[in-house]
Amino acid sequence: MKALVYRGPGKKSLEDRPMPQIAGPTDAIVQIVKTTICGTDLHILKGDVPTCMPGRILGHEGVGVVDKVGAGVTAFHPGDRVLVSCISACGRCEYCRRGMYSHCTTGGWILGNAIDGTQAEYVRIPHADTSLYPIPPGADEEALVMLSDILPTGFECGVLNGRVQPGATVAIVGAGPIGLAVLLTAQFYAPAEIIMIDLDANRLEVAKRFGATQTVQAAGDKAAEAVMQITGKRGVDTAIEAVGVPASFITCEDIIAPGGTIANIGVHGVKVDLHLEKLWSQNITITTRLVDTVTTPMLVKTVQSRRIDPKLLITHHFTLDHILDAYDTFGQAAKTRALKVIIGA
Amino acid sequence: MKALVYRGPGKKSLEDRPMPQIAGPTDAIVQIVKTTICGTDLHILKGDVPTCMPGRILGHEGVGVVDKVGAGVTAFHPGDRVLVSCISACGRCEYCRRGMYSHCTTGGWILGNAIDGTQAEYVRIPHADTSLYPIPPGADEEALVMLSDILPTGFECGVLNGRVQPGATVAIVGAGPIGLAVLLTAQFYAPAEIIMIDLDANRLEVAKRFGATQTVQAAGDKAAEAVMQITGKRGVDTAIEAVGVPASFITCEDIIAPGGTIANIGVHGVKVDLHLEKLWSQNITITTRLVDTVTTPMLVKTVQSRRIDPKLLITHHFTLDHILDAYDTFGQAAKTRALKVIIGA
Amino acid sequence: MKALVYRGPGKKSLEDRPMPQIAGPTDAIVQIVKTTICGTDLHILKGDVPTCMPGRILGHEGVGVVDKVGAGVTAFHPGDRVLVSCISACGRCEYCRRGMYSHCTTGGWILGNAIDGTQAEYVRIPHADTSLYPIPPGADEEALVMLSDILPTGFECGVLNGRVQPGATVAIVGAGPIGLAVLLTAQFYAPAEIIMIDLDANRLEVAKRFGATQTVQAAGDKAAEAVMQITGKRGVDTAIEAVGVPASFITCEDIIAPGGTIANIGVHGVKVDLHLEKLWSQNITITTRLVDTVTTPMLVKTVQSRRIDPKLLITHHFTLDHILDAYDTFGQAAKTRALKVIIGA
Amino acid sequence: MKALVYRGPGKKSLEDRPMPQIAGPTDAIVQIVKTTICGTDLHILKGDVPTCMPGRILGHEGVGVVDKVGAGVTAFHPGDRVLVSCISACGRCEYCRRGMYSHCTTGGWILGNAIDGTQAEYVRIPHADTSLYPIPPGADEEALVMLSDILPTGFECGVLNGRVQPGATVAIVGAGPIGLAVLLTAQFYAPAEIIMIDLDANRLEVAKRFGATQTVQAAGDKAAEAVMQITGKRGVDTAIEAVGVPASFITCEDIIAPGGTIANIGVHGVKVDLHLEKLWSQNITITTRLVDTVTTPMLVKTVQSRRIDPKLLITHHFTLDHILDAYDTFGQAAKTRALKVIIGA
Repeated sequence: MKALVYRGPGKKSLEDRPMPQIAGPTDAIVQIVKTTICGTDLHILKGDVPTCMPGRILGHEGVGVVDKVGAGVTAFHPGDRVLVSCISACGRCEYCRRGMYSHCTTGGWILGNAIDGTQAEYVRIPHADTSLYPIPPGADEEALVMLSDILPTGFECGVLNGRVQPGATVAIVGAGPIGLAVLLTAQFYAPAEIIMIDLDANRLEVAKRFGATQTVQAAGDKAAEAVMQITGKRGVDTAIEAVGVPASFITCEDIIAPGGTIANIGVHGVKVDLHLEKLWSQNITITTRLVDTVTTPMLVKTVQSRRIDPKLLITHHFTLDHILDAYDTFGQAAKTRALKVIIGA
Repeated sequence: MKALVYRGPGKKSLEDRPMPQIAGPTDAIVQIVKTTICGTDLHILKGDVPTCMPGRILGHEGVGVVDKVGAGVTAFHPGDRVLVSCISACGRCEYCRRGMYSHCTTGGWILGNAIDGTQAEYVRIPHADTSLYPIPPGADEEALVMLSDILPTGFECGVLNGRVQPGATVAIVGAGPIGLAVLLTAQFYAPAEIIMIDLDANRLEVAKRFGATQTVQAAGDKAAEAVMQITGKRGVDTAIEAVGVPASFITCEDIIAPGGTIANIGVHGVKVDLHLEKLWSQNITITTRLVDTVTTPMLVKTVQSRRIDPKLLITHHFTLDHILDAYDTFGQAAKTRALKVIIGA
Repeated sequence: MKALVYRGPGKKSLEDRPMPQIAGPTDAIVQIVKTTICGTDLHILKGDVPTCMPGRILGHEGVGVVDKVGAGVTAFHPGDRVLVSCISACGRCEYCRRGMYSHCTTGGWILGNAIDGTQAEYVRIPHADTSLYPIPPGADEEALVMLSDILPTGFECGVLNGRVQPGATVAIVGAGPIGLAVLLTAQFYAPAEIIMIDLDANRLEVAKRFGATQTVQAAGDKAAEAVMQITGKRGVDTAIEAVGVPASFITCEDIIAPGGTIANIGVHGVKVDLHLEKLWSQNITITTRLVDTVTTPMLVKTVQSRRIDPKLLITHHFTLDHILDAYDTFGQAAKTRALKVIIGA
Repeated sequence: MKALVYRGPGKKSLEDRPMPQIAGPTDAIVQIVKTTICGTDLHILKGDVPTCMPGRILGHEGVGVVDKVGAGVTAFHPGDRVLVSCISACGRCEYCRRGMYSHCTTGGWILGNAIDGTQAEYVRIPHADTSLYPIPPGADEEALVMLSDILPTGFECGVLNGRVQPGATVAIVGAGPIGLAVLLTAQFYAPAEIIMIDLDANRLEVAKRFGATQTVQAAGDKAAEAVMQITGKRGVDTAIEAVGVPASFITCEDIIAPGGTIANIGVHGVKVDLHLEKLWSQNITITTRLVDTVTTPMLVKTVQSRRIDPKLLITHHFTLDHILDAYDTFGQAAKTRALKVIIGA
């Protein structure tokens, strides 16, 4: 079968690979119908993710059709149309029982990382019963690809952890695909203000169309000053970091109101300064989270009831044969204005 | 001054009454600009509210201008435009400290009940600092009259107590003004389905315009059957009782899914049957609540940011001189299609 | 093997039955080391539980040793010492994902009810990975038998649902084994007062030894009056129903303070009167729950760290050969002063 | 009257000062019966608190008797015995309504800081109705002095913010008076393990007597290693920083388990390194808080019901005449083994 394979820092190739096989009783083999590329895949290609070894098939998102199941799989059968979660969860370890699938002792984010992923014709999914989700009849499968990772990430790590509330003021630092996923799902809670912060005018324009009430085209101190001016020097109730660099986290520290919450989503490579000399008395909360995808069933319902339209995030379409072009387009997002690209079978 | 006075069961009159005076250090005198009539006022007129004695000026809703303040009032000054809360709260007793203003030991629902109310040219407001709310510059004062009682009641007793969540299925039993206030504020939380139940076709039509995803024109067993069919026999996550009679509470019991919440808003005159022989194992929650108006500042923000439009509830306008006509119109809602009536100064 | 078999209302016998066999990939066969008898077993014997058919081996509590496992079981192996949960949970259905194991679509309370139970030498446990719990090395296995059902029931349905808090006032109506399990686990949250209500002087004496700060030997109006006097007419923050008859639920309604919570544990056979004409404005919460056993791992930790001593509940010991005597002793608790009886292999 | 006056960095004196006067309608004058010294008072004396100007009477803790009240005070009368909260709260601003008294727009921590404090014969208390608490008849007033600041600080900033739960593992970094107050109040929630970390053997000995299940006499990497060994490399569910220096916060980062909470109490003078490159995916929560004293009424109940004995923290007694000796004793705690000192009238 065809598969996109990581070949070490800076290298990837579309290759012919053997079909995956059932390796344990809880495995399923899924034929991929549509997949996509994540910012994390670009991190892997930079060599930033040591758990991902050369030779690995990339990809942790997608929808497909169940092809085979192991002896212990009871919730799915061959022919079932399924959504693949980026997180594999056994459903039985201490972390899974607490809803922290991200830290499943035999799962977590392993797909397209520690085991072969979804940018291929077929993929093996361990712990299938608790790592796949049924696709409702008549659902738009392309929209659901956004529920493998980016929407639950924005919602769980940003909106839920950030405790977005009706009437509240929210700032989102970073208007890339993740920041925009936060923006879409934050509206589930009717905040009064959603301020979007980025340097890219195009992305801020998109953010306005997606529901941002204010945009700030600036970074660092200037961004913080603009937010403080917008909020009458009060700051925001929720600040969501959706970039992954120290400067944007510092912006969150600078704009958070007393009693507020900073929700970090970004993947950070270095430490940041936490200004406890200022914040110790400010009654703030800071959260970090690797997405657990526990909200996936709920998100499916909101898509089905049209409370949210995830297709807004999709800008380009490719076939698996042209996945290298898809990577080019996604990798040069500033130029191509790509948000999420769909790769069909 | 002119005032609408309760004169015993079935009797009311528009009378000339002396101006209210500051009676304690935390009092304010407010000149009423706009007020409205509540279903509870009709209950008083039926003689159902023993705490309300003949001779009482009715009304517990309104916006106005501060005329005078007592020596202990620090948050408001003469000339300030204010929203009057239906609940008076001292802000210092055990209940107020817990946010249960409804049970304030020297307040609670006393306005237009145990003390003279707002259907007059002027009203005395005790505990003014914690029972009035500033009106933001440029706000639509008519819309804010809906925040004295009906919107916080729908939101606190129905939506918050009912734990409405994104993706959830909600049923509202009763499409009168309170049920419609629930409907408007439930949408703060993006439920997947909102099923509105009533016998009045006009009110269900209004409900559809206000955002109901389904309507059921039935009562009793037939209503319950219709809801079970809509939900694939699963029932609803939240059932909100907005009528105040045993039959509608029973409907809630009949349609609640395992793990769901029944939030009672209705003012009940008799006991209801609680079918614990069926419900003991269903992991359900039942809540009751007299509105606390603790969410009033938040609701003001959602109005200011246009997340909600309370004016949708206003159907008729009168002046205080014609308040008896206003009562007639409001009292014959089935015929006049009245929801909320505004009474201007 | 030997097993205690239900033979229709009023009838039970100790019989020789075939060994249970692995029937599905997620099954385990467990050799029972210790089991016990539950009040629910007595209900079955009265014919009150229609899902339990004659011929059924009773019992849903116990500790044992894993004998065999199905192909899909990964968390346990033959020889592992395990605690059997009274609730079987697949870990993957909608209810299990929400922690509502009691409503697992292919599990719930089936053991000793819809399938053969633990009052036998061996038992088949479906969904073994998520329905068994490992016994820590060195643990007191007899104490852990109390964690199959009675302690999680008291804790989840009573203490957690009742939102017991530090400094709060709690009343427990019914000082039987379940009420006493509530009493023990309520002390995890340092309430200021725990008032125990029962007619049996011996059980109230036990309650005092277990940590009750007050006891009331009365029922009905007299019990309610006593509680109102103890609390200075304020009522209690949490009232826990641990009997299962209308009168004791009414007592809870009569003593609940504004803002308080009534947590029902009792198995009710008939409806009760809910006095909404009084309670609609009291901001109360009523909960029902069939135990989910989601807190079992936590309870094991509190036992291991000696925060609680479940052996306090054990009054008598028998062997499986003498289980009929055990039933006699447990069934005549008022006379024998039995709380929980242990039945060894 | 006699008063302890701050005279600039390093300088303090016991002076004769004029009696405080009612300055606003919500003021009360309280005659101090007992007060104490806080670590924060030592910070002021080092010149670390710029809001506290020379000439200020220090002290923000104490019990006393109401002497006079302003026209707007309704909850207290001359002769009432009261507990003084370290936090002054108006009860009406946005922050007070949210229970964030620490950020009251006209209060917060002002006593013995921006206005004269309690280390004197009399003190003026603004917002008296919401900043004083009645002392129950028969209460041990010396014990209640611990409820002015140290116990609510340990409980709110450490235990509540740290979400201590039954069965959980808690580490407290710093066994000074604040750390010990955390230790006492953490036991309200029955954690399985409480690990106390400090370099001072005497304080760890005290911690064991107060209920610590483990002690670690180490700092930095060695402390973290010891905790990881105790917890089987898992880390702790809650890590509480009770020192206020970067090293102890880093210890918390090093020992926190996935899904855990770091609750900062310490007053920090410089920034700390937040290792997001490690923590971004660990689903942790970090909180900061200046005590709000919203739990004071609840803590009074736990003292009255003997769930906690705050007198354990009191090691020395002085009279106001000898307050300079009290400062010496408290300032040399390592030598004198002082925890909290009581200064009687």
